[in-house]
Amino acid sequence: MVKLDFQKSAEGLLPVIAQDYLSGDVLMLAYINEQAWKKTLETGLAHYWSRSRNQIWLKGESSGYVQDIKEILVDCDADSVIYKVDQRGGAACHRGFPTCFHQKLNDDGLEIVETRVFNPEEVYSSKG
Amino acid sequence: MVKLDFQKSAEGLLPVIAQDYLSGDVLMLAYINEQAWKKTLETGLAHYWSRSRNQIWLKGESSGYVQDIKEILVDCDADSVIYKVDQRGGAACHRGFPTCFHQKLNDDGLEIVETRVFNPEEVYSSKG
Repeated sequence: MVKLDFQKSAEGLLPVIAQDYLSGDVLMLAYINEQAWKKTLETGLAHYWSRSRNQIWLKGESSGYVQDIKEILVDCDADSVIYKVDQRGGAACHRGFPTCFHQKLNDDGLEIVETRVFNPEEVYSSKG
Repeated sequence: MVKLDFQKSAEGLLPVIAQDYLSGDVLMLAYINEQAWKKTLETGLAHYWSRSRNQIWLKGESSGYVQDIKEILVDCDADSVIYKVDQRGGAACHRGFPTCFHQKLNDDGLEIVETRVFNPEEVYSSKG
């Protein structure tokens, strides 16, 4: 298994950029520790470390919006990674947008530049 | 100025994804603090916080490979940002490659999948 430089951060977490493997759109940024990295390589499904829940996180575990890994790129310092993924359902953001980066900075502040794919209340309320 | 959630990390640093504004290629990942964020908005040039030198960093200051900001996207939690940039000289990586993510993970390890645009020894040795 390719070693990443997890010692680079105090918490042992490295940032991962999830990018749509076809469009090149950046879907989200999240973090991995060594366990999440290993699970991703083993399963071919994007795993992260949830900083809010402090536990390993199979992306899409609650929502079904799983990310199938198509390719992985490692940066020059081995301290960040791109997961090129096929985003099931076409939405990565827990707010129901295609990407987490759906806010564009303009002179008046932030403008929403994407259209919701799902209603978060419906997707998350049906789960335990 | 749009407020980002710098309190999210212990060091007050947030990750920034620099992305080519035309191709969509992810060029690099680096960090900003509030000062670097402000400087970026004021100047239209990508500024980061150098964790190794512990100082503000105008990208391209030594190499000339400056990044002109074309657009900024902010994520749903306001704790990470995309700089869509015009990368002067066509190379973002200090190793001379177009992007820092020039290593692809395959069964044998990491494979270099980009071609060098410049020789780092020439670009950096001429500077003081």
